[in-house]
Amino acid sequence: MASATHSMRSKVYQQGSRPDLRVPFTRVELSGGEPPVLLYDTSGPGGDLTMGLPELRLGWITERGDVDTAPAVGPANEGRMVRRARAGRRVTQLHYARSGIITPEMEFAAIREQMDPEAVRAEIAAGRAILPNNINHPESEPMLIGEKFLVKVNANIGTSAVSSGIAEEVDKMSWACTWGADTVMDLSTGKHIHRIREAIVRNSPVPIGTVPLYQALEKVNGDPQLLTWEIYRDTVIEQAEQGVDYMTVHAAVLLAHVPLAVDRVTGIVSRGGSIMAAWALARHEENFLYTRFRDLCEIFAQFDIAFSLGDGLRPGSIADANDEAQFAELRTQGELTTIAWEYDVQVMNEGPGHVPLHKIKENVDKQKLWCSDAPFYTLGPLTTDIAPAYDHITSAIGAAVIAMHGTAMLCYVTPKEHLGLPNREDVKAGMIAYKIAAHAGDLAKNHPGAQVWDDALSKARFEFRWEDQFNLAIDPDQARSYHDETLPAIGARTAHFCSMCGPKFCSMKISHELKDLAAQGMAMKSAEFKEAGAKLYLPLA
Amino acid sequence: MASATHSMRSKVYQQGSRPDLRVPFTRVELSGGEPPVLLYDTSGPGGDLTMGLPELRLGWITERGDVDTAPAVGPANEGRMVRRARAGRRVTQLHYARSGIITPEMEFAAIREQMDPEAVRAEIAAGRAILPNNINHPESEPMLIGEKFLVKVNANIGTSAVSSGIAEEVDKMSWACTWGADTVMDLSTGKHIHRIREAIVRNSPVPIGTVPLYQALEKVNGDPQLLTWEIYRDTVIEQAEQGVDYMTVHAAVLLAHVPLAVDRVTGIVSRGGSIMAAWALARHEENFLYTRFRDLCEIFAQFDIAFSLGDGLRPGSIADANDEAQFAELRTQGELTTIAWEYDVQVMNEGPGHVPLHKIKENVDKQKLWCSDAPFYTLGPLTTDIAPAYDHITSAIGAAVIAMHGTAMLCYVTPKEHLGLPNREDVKAGMIAYKIAAHAGDLAKNHPGAQVWDDALSKARFEFRWEDQFNLAIDPDQARSYHDETLPAIGARTAHFCSMCGPKFCSMKISHELKDLAAQGMAMKSAEFKEAGAKLYLPLA
Repeated sequence: MASATHSMRSKVYQQGSRPDLRVPFTRVELSGGEPPVLLYDTSGPGGDLTMGLPELRLGWITERGDVDTAPAVGPANEGRMVRRARAGRRVTQLHYARSGIITPEMEFAAIREQMDPEAVRAEIAAGRAILPNNINHPESEPMLIGEKFLVKVNANIGTSAVSSGIAEEVDKMSWACTWGADTVMDLSTGKHIHRIREAIVRNSPVPIGTVPLYQALEKVNGDPQLLTWEIYRDTVIEQAEQGVDYMTVHAAVLLAHVPLAVDRVTGIVSRGGSIMAAWALARHEENFLYTRFRDLCEIFAQFDIAFSLGDGLRPGSIADANDEAQFAELRTQGELTTIAWEYDVQVMNEGPGHVPLHKIKENVDKQKLWCSDAPFYTLGPLTTDIAPAYDHITSAIGAAVIAMHGTAMLCYVTPKEHLGLPNREDVKAGMIAYKIAAHAGDLAKNHPGAQVWDDALSKARFEFRWEDQFNLAIDPDQARSYHDETLPAIGARTAHFCSMCGPKFCSMKISHELKDLAAQGMAMKSAEFKEAGAKLYLPLA
Repeated sequence: MASATHSMRSKVYQQGSRPDLRVPFTRVELSGGEPPVLLYDTSGPGGDLTMGLPELRLGWITERGDVDTAPAVGPANEGRMVRRARAGRRVTQLHYARSGIITPEMEFAAIREQMDPEAVRAEIAAGRAILPNNINHPESEPMLIGEKFLVKVNANIGTSAVSSGIAEEVDKMSWACTWGADTVMDLSTGKHIHRIREAIVRNSPVPIGTVPLYQALEKVNGDPQLLTWEIYRDTVIEQAEQGVDYMTVHAAVLLAHVPLAVDRVTGIVSRGGSIMAAWALARHEENFLYTRFRDLCEIFAQFDIAFSLGDGLRPGSIADANDEAQFAELRTQGELTTIAWEYDVQVMNEGPGHVPLHKIKENVDKQKLWCSDAPFYTLGPLTTDIAPAYDHITSAIGAAVIAMHGTAMLCYVTPKEHLGLPNREDVKAGMIAYKIAAHAGDLAKNHPGAQVWDDALSKARFEFRWEDQFNLAIDPDQARSYHDETLPAIGARTAHFCSMCGPKFCSMKISHELKDLAAQGMAMKSAEFKEAGAKLYLPLA
């Protein structure tokens, strides 16, 4: 049908309204006279990952005239110059959007989504979408998290006390972006947190999220009772100056919620949630992240850090799904969302966890209602507890369904969930499963343009354009390798059948013959058909 | 908390109302004083797979007095004695159920489902469930396919003209049953179809399905136009005498439907559908499977073969989902369902295919309505076309959702779908993904007892009973191996943390401390709490 010669993938840039606004895409050239397909591209500019990426957004940040460069004040940042809002200024995309300004960041993200920049501005202004990009992370490529946009995927990486090193984590970050990670969370604990994060932020083309509580706890040798607001605040400032784009803050775990979780099958399964619950319960004091939330908002507004309001009481088992502990916290997340907006700070809300299929929609409905349509960012959810080692699959099922109902970003789960830290292979497995879930969600939401990809691949499949099919696949290498396992000859890549059915039983081959047959039948027997089967052949007329 | 010493998996049998009725389960012994968990077991009695399995159901079949043993008449069965209904008798479970009889087969299946045998009989009598078991396949263990029962999974195996041999296919069948296959379809084409099927049926503890059309087509050297009713009928009889339990029959692909599919993105993607469409269109005659359907019913009733009414026009791409071709065929499937019931023949209906998430429910709704609540048996559906090499995941998402809505059996899809024939590793990957989807469906349907498994595993997880967690896992080996990758010492299997978070950040460890803390708080500070926080601590009282 068509030669496979010209089929290939390449990186291209689409020019925006100004010379320094060039938006990356993966362009898949197709054979057979088919138009090329542009795919959203998260892989970044590449290069030497010890050197740091180019500062793409530096001009956009400085030209607004609302940012100062000054010596850092955060611990471990001594001697470093960092950016911070000028006194009294809020340098957030929410602030600009509310002021009616379409920033270059918004235009960049709009081009990625192939949507109108004004629609992007309006969604951000309404709080229904966020564009997380700390002014100290000018290397990142702007992207959107919101129900109206493509469903995004976050990849968690990070060391623990018993595993992994700096180069390995930077590699995982970059590898995750290669496979489509839209943001990366560095969840490192143990030693060298600051240095690992620095290496990750400087080399990341996507927004970086963290849970500052983990580093704060390291500073008090792991004893929750020794945590103070001051230690936490200084940790937030340290990370803000490094360029962390969004931070998970477990401010909605209130003292009053803790007893609701004590008799659960799996108690509290969020690290941050359990730490703050332990702190609050041991001291009989309200969670300081809640009582100091307005102070945090002031800091976040100076760097354009987005809140990812943590769900510290998310269910860790099917039995605990949609319980009172979970929903009590969600109500508080809603209260805090509104407060953050007072400060022009961008907010998204984190969600579960482990939830059976029939209880997923309720999570989205309640989150939209209580959190005023702020973007929802969910971990999975896992739709059953019985498959450790396959939780990328148990949760991709839940992730696709929750995305269909309106979740804006999915936090991936790897096959190692519940068992250990993901290695490079697990990161890829988690990413692929979640890009599938996200795209299934895009299709179900009728995202304009989502189906173009499916249609191009299916048309290539139907026309036996094997190279086109591989190049359009979410993982071209794996698709090619599986095909070649049973039909290894290069010639087989142009064959009009595959090893599944062999040449005689290929339904697609027969379908093409049918099409010819139907067309011939029309020409030769039209008179006869008109009498006996006019209705029958109508669709072909 | 608990020693892992006694944790183990073993096969046990539950005794029914008669000595020869012993129902297999996997029993998972747990440590820590937890009660054992019984899991549904499809693995069969095991043994040498060249010898054939014991004839479990032989006594039940013969004692009813409605079966004769006589020389076979089907091609390739010469010299063999086979069972067949006595003249004028219908030996189907539907016939017995309608007559008010609870057969040993029904009791066996009821015990497996841990349900009331009378409820099983009633579901079969109403046509809402089938119990496929050809009287010439006495080796099989009775099982149910119906919305009220556990969601089942079928594994497709079989050679094609370019791949695989007999021993390999028998091994795949057995391997699929090890991982939970409830039925197996032998979709072999090419040479040796008869011998491969014989080896599979004799060694299979689960019902075997086939598509007789494939073998019939081999008999006419692959030219659809040479097919005749007589060749097809004799093939059906040959397979009936061997013991095939259900047959896919593409009787609902009518001549009038073909033009509806011609302009699709992916035409006709069912092998059987495309063959019958080609036959009908080339000859300008109605599909002989449709015109001779009552003759087929007569044959099926003599062996208790169940119809799996094929969906020859199922969509092969997102673009073609829920189109007129698909639904026109489904209406005809409904018409044929009612006809089969006239003959006391058991029926299920096959369904798609490729369907985006938001269009899945419509498939189940229409199938229930048009096919009078006969069981639905679906391939996936795949929720996106973009992930060849990962279609076990794209389709497990759709499978879980369609199961939630009421699909009774899921046909697995392996990572090789669209690319080649599955090997042993692919069979396992497909099975695991689909057992997850089926169980997620069971949970969503609130199947009694489904959540026991999740709760036992989650409780083991929360209490750091690692060996219990592994033994309860859907794949104990893989779970154990992932855990040991990062914490290899045997001691780590009793550790109160894992490598994901390390000891300091283990939320579950903190949760246990919280529980203690909360309890102490209650004891020591009760007076104080009653004033300040009575509401707060109430759930602990």
